Order: sequence, then structure tokens, then C-alpha cells
Amino acid sequence: MKLVPLGTSAASLAHGRHPASLALVREGQILLFDCGDGTLSRLISATLNHGKIAAIFISHLHGDHYLGLFGLLNAMSRRDRSAPLVVVAPKLLSQVMAQLPGVRARDLTFPVELVATEEAIAQPVVYQTRAYKVEARQMDHGTAFAVGYRLEEHVRPGRLDVASAMELGITGFRDFWRLKNGESVHNADGRLVTPDMVLGPPPPVQIFAYTGDTRPCRGAIQLAQDATLFVHDATFADEHRRKAELTGHSTAVQAAKVAQEAGVSRLLLTHFSARYKDLALLVNQARQVFPETEAARELHPVILDARPTPLRVE
Amino acid sequence: MKLVPLGTSAASLAHGRHPASLALVREGQILLFDCGDGTLSRLISATLNHGKIAAIFISHLHGDHYLGLFGLLNAMSRRDRSAPLVVVAPKLLSQVMAQLPGVRARDLTFPVELVATEEAIAQPVVYQTRAYKVEARQMDHGTAFAVGYRLEEHVRPGRLDVASAMELGITGFRDFWRLKNGESVHNADGRLVTPDMVLGPPPPVQIFAYTGDTRPCRGAIQLAQDATLFVHDATFADEHRRKAELTGHSTAVQAAKVAQEAGVSRLLLTHFSARYKDLALLVNQARQVFPETEAARELHPVILDARPTPLRVE
Repeated sequence: MKLVPLGTSAASLAHGRHPASLALVREGQILLFDCGDGTLSRLISATLNHGKIAAIFISHLHGDHYLGLFGLLNAMSRRDRSAPLVVVAPKLLSQVMAQLPGVRARDLTFPVELVATEEAIAQPVVYQTRAYKVEARQMDHGTAFAVGYRLEEHVRPGRLDVASAMELGITGFRDFWRLKNGESVHNADGRLVTPDMVLGPPPPVQIFAYTGDTRPCRGAIQLAQDATLFVHDATFADEHRRKAELTGHSTAVQAAKVAQEAGVSRLLLTHFSARYKDLALLVNQARQVFPETEAARELHPVILDARPTPLRVE
Repeated sequence: MKLVPLGTSAASLAHGRHPASLALVREGQILLFDCGDGTLSRLISATLNHGKIAAIFISHLHGDHYLGLFGLLNAMSRRDRSAPLVVVAPKLLSQVMAQLPGVRARDLTFPVELVATEEAIAQPVVYQTRAYKVEARQMDHGTAFAVGYRLEEHVRPGRLDVASAMELGITGFRDFWRLKNGESVHNADGRLVTPDMVLGPPPPVQIFAYTGDTRPCRGAIQLAQDATLFVHDATFADEHRRKAELTGHSTAVQAAKVAQEAGVSRLLLTHFSARYKDLALLVNQARQVFPETEAARELHPVILDARPTPLRVE
């Protein structure tokens, strides 16, 4: 699993940074988190095939987080996509899309399944596959209804020790398969063989969390609990705490405190104000609180599966 | 006056080309013709300040020609634009914009004046200033209602020959001003002095025309009459005439024939299909018919005021 930051800018663009968008690539599939204007071109720059996007998760309906969605859907249709696409977003989006030439259902070659983020308040799981689930949780972005997202892999069984199983009298493939999938089986002598007798430890679970725009809040701490990689709003340096509070954003230090409380492995800062050309100030302030911090760099992938210490974004 | 191509691609993006957009820069003001997804970032790449955009002209509501409009308006608002913006587009656009978070009137810091292209059928002038007018004319793009645009500078008076005027007995500044503005005046002896007696030839008028997406058609020939620079749809090479006809587009050769019939000075091809990495094929085919042809190159400005022979896009 790798994360490719496509856009790391706050609303006012500067220093070659682009509107908010992150691509999470997992086993050849792409999940897109936010989709600011021009995300289509950013995917091309990252040599990511938009045909591989399975779902798009919009944190909130501020222009710099969602206005690239329409161009992207239109482009998918022009490539004759047929696979359904899941779009998780505030419910107002479906109303807007229904009217938009080139984006409304009758203009698209594929179905869009809209999942309303408002429903996540009652039922956090907004998307799931056999391998992982994605939950949405409400953030604190002032007057806009905004959510963060957490992808958590399901626990997978450990490696089956075939030699041990055979020693215990298990010989059939079907019994191997059952043990691997957590069922106990009886051997030829009628003795019970349980999975823990033949399976190694489960492989580590990767957890990715992304706040979108938010003030530091309890929801963000819950969202990021034990995350392998946590991406947090870090619009401002510490000197602009008050501006962050007023605009519903966070400072890098606040992001670091959330990361620390949530017990994450690594923190990646994003959504940088145009006032910071060099991001070293933000990173250094955050590292005073949480050393495993880096600034997201556009088109520089961060690998989640490997866990180098310390994290170095190339 | 200079034209900066921002996006020269047909709908399927390839070879580093971007969705349709052209910026015409005239005396510090920018007019934008079409606004595909990501035009905001293209303006930044071209170091063009979006605050200088006075009007945006959309040829038709296919996604690759208009879906960057919303991100651009949102970005203008985030920079606290207050100056009104004229948007010329099919009238359906206003309905869509009224609903779109971050783009609807109450979310913008500036007023948008929408001019419906449908009305151009009866009244072609869709925008004008003291220096020029812009007309829209219907093109032939199949089922979509599509227009092309023509900007034509007003004829300006020639240089006033002050010495000749004084010889004819004109001495007051007020009378100079009247003559310069086309009025006749009497000298102290009561003799009539007419502007043609004291004004040099009017400076050349620049005319820019852009078809948007179209088949070759009579409307395009009228649109481009005597244009200094004419930008025409050239999606395909001659081998794909039939595909051009079916999809409502033109071949480069067809564009050249229109240019020739319209008596333009220079032809710039655009809207290239993803199948052409190298555009030399299209340019060479067009030049057999109309030698003063080039392919638009993104971010390579074409100067309209100078008229080098032959045209060379750098």
C-alpha cells in the first residue's frame, strides 16, 4: 500500500502546490481522498491510471476539496469506463451532479453509487471490501460539515505451517483451507486440531487515516487510533494558532499532538498555507511534539507496508 | 495582444496535453476561451494572474471545455476578487452554478454576469469594451449547442498630423481632439477641415477567432472572416475524416480549407486527439492547403500584434 500526495495546498495556491487530493494505491486499486480542481491532470502526472479508481472519498464541499471531481468523472466516461464507482460525499453532491452536463447519470458510461457522509454519524463504515473497511468520522471544520476517513485492513490469518499440520495428522487440502480460515478440524484419529496450533502470527494490519480540513478534535484522535500513517491538516505554523482556530484548521503542532494522543506510527502534514514556501518550519515545530513527522510532498509516494524508522519521504 | 494556449487536447488526455483552454492577453487583461478541468493550475503554470480575467467564453457544455470553470471561480473568490466577471456560456450553466457549493452566488465574493450563448443567434455581440467587441456564432458540433467566438478590435483613428492641422489654421487642443475623433471643424477663416485631411491611415485591426469544437461549416468561415489569428478544431488527420464527421469535429485539412475561404492571416490548430503524439502529420497536411498553419503548443504564446511571415510558434 502506498500513498501518493497529488495536491497538498490550502485554498490559495502557491509554490507549485495543487488543490487537495491524495491517492492511496493498494493491490493495483486506487482510492482517492479529496479531489480538488485539476486532480485529473495530477493523476496523469503521477502516472496513475484513473481507470483503477474504485472509490472517491470527499471530506467536505469546499471548492478546493471537491471541484476536480466533475472533470475526473467526465474523463472516466470518455474512456468508456463501465465499472461502478463509489463516491462518498455530503449528500448535496448528488443533487448537484444530477444537473451537471457531462456528469449527470445519463451522460456517464458507468454507474456512480453515492454514499452520504451524513449517514456516517450513525453508521461509520462507508465502504468495504474483503480486505479492508473505510470509516468516516465527523471532524471540526467550523460551519462546513466535514469528515475524516480511516482505512483499516481486516486481520488476515497467519502463515499455515503445513509440516506441523501434517505431523498432527492433517493431510487433505480442504482441511488446510479450513484451518487457514480459522476453523478447527479433526484428524484421522479424531483429535481436534485448532488454527492456533498450525498458524503463524497474523501479518501486521495497515491503518491509514486522513482528516481533511479540521481543527484538532476528539474525532481526529479516534479516527487515527494506532494508524500506520496519519495525514492531518497542518495549514499553519504555531504563530498562527488563532488564525487556524478562526478558519477551522490546525497548526502543525496541533496535528502532532493529535498524532501522539492517537498513538500513530507516522504523521504526514498536508494542506499548507500559501505563506509557507519552505515547509521546514512546520515540520520542525511538529517534531518537537511527535518526531515521526514529515511534510507531504506532491508526487512523492509514501510506502505504508514497509515501516522504516524514522520515516523519510523521498 | 497575445494568445497563450493552456490546453490543446481533445477529451482523452495524452502526451502531456491538457483540456481545452486558451488565454488571450490584451493590455493586461485576460479573456479566457473555454475552461477545461485544471485550467486554474494551467494559468499558474503560464504565470497568468487569474485576477486579470475580465470574461470567460465557453464554447459548449462538454466536460472537457467547461468543468474547470468552477475551480477557477472558487479560487478567484478565495483571493477576494470584487470585480464583476462576465461568463458567456449556454444558459443551462447558470442553473447548475446556482446550486454548486463554493460557486453559487452567495459563496462568491464577486458578481458573475452570465450571458447566454443561445441569445447570440439573434444578437451576436456577447461582450464589448471601448476597444473591441466579441461575437458568438453557432458552429456545427452535432447534438451539442456550440458556438465559436470572434474578437474584433474597433477601428482606431490614424495619427493626427499636428503640423498639417496647424497649417490649415487649426490651433486649439479641443479641435485637435475633435478631428482625432472623426469630427470636422472650422478654422478661424471659416474653412471646413475634415479628419481625412489631417489623419494618417488607421492602425491595423486585430481579429482573433476560435471555433471551439466543430465540423467545418459556413458559420466558421463567417466567424473567421479576415482574422489575424484563427484557432480551429483539428482533432484528426485526414485519414480519419469519417471519424471527424461522426464525432462533430474537423480534420486539420478541413480547418485549413475553412481558413483559406475565410481569408485569415494565420491558422493555429488545436484540440488534438490522443492518437497523435507528434503533430507534424496534422500540420503538414494542413499546410498543403493553407501554408500559414501551426499547431498550438501549450504555454507557448503567439503574438497577434506583430505579423511575422511565416508564422512560427516558438
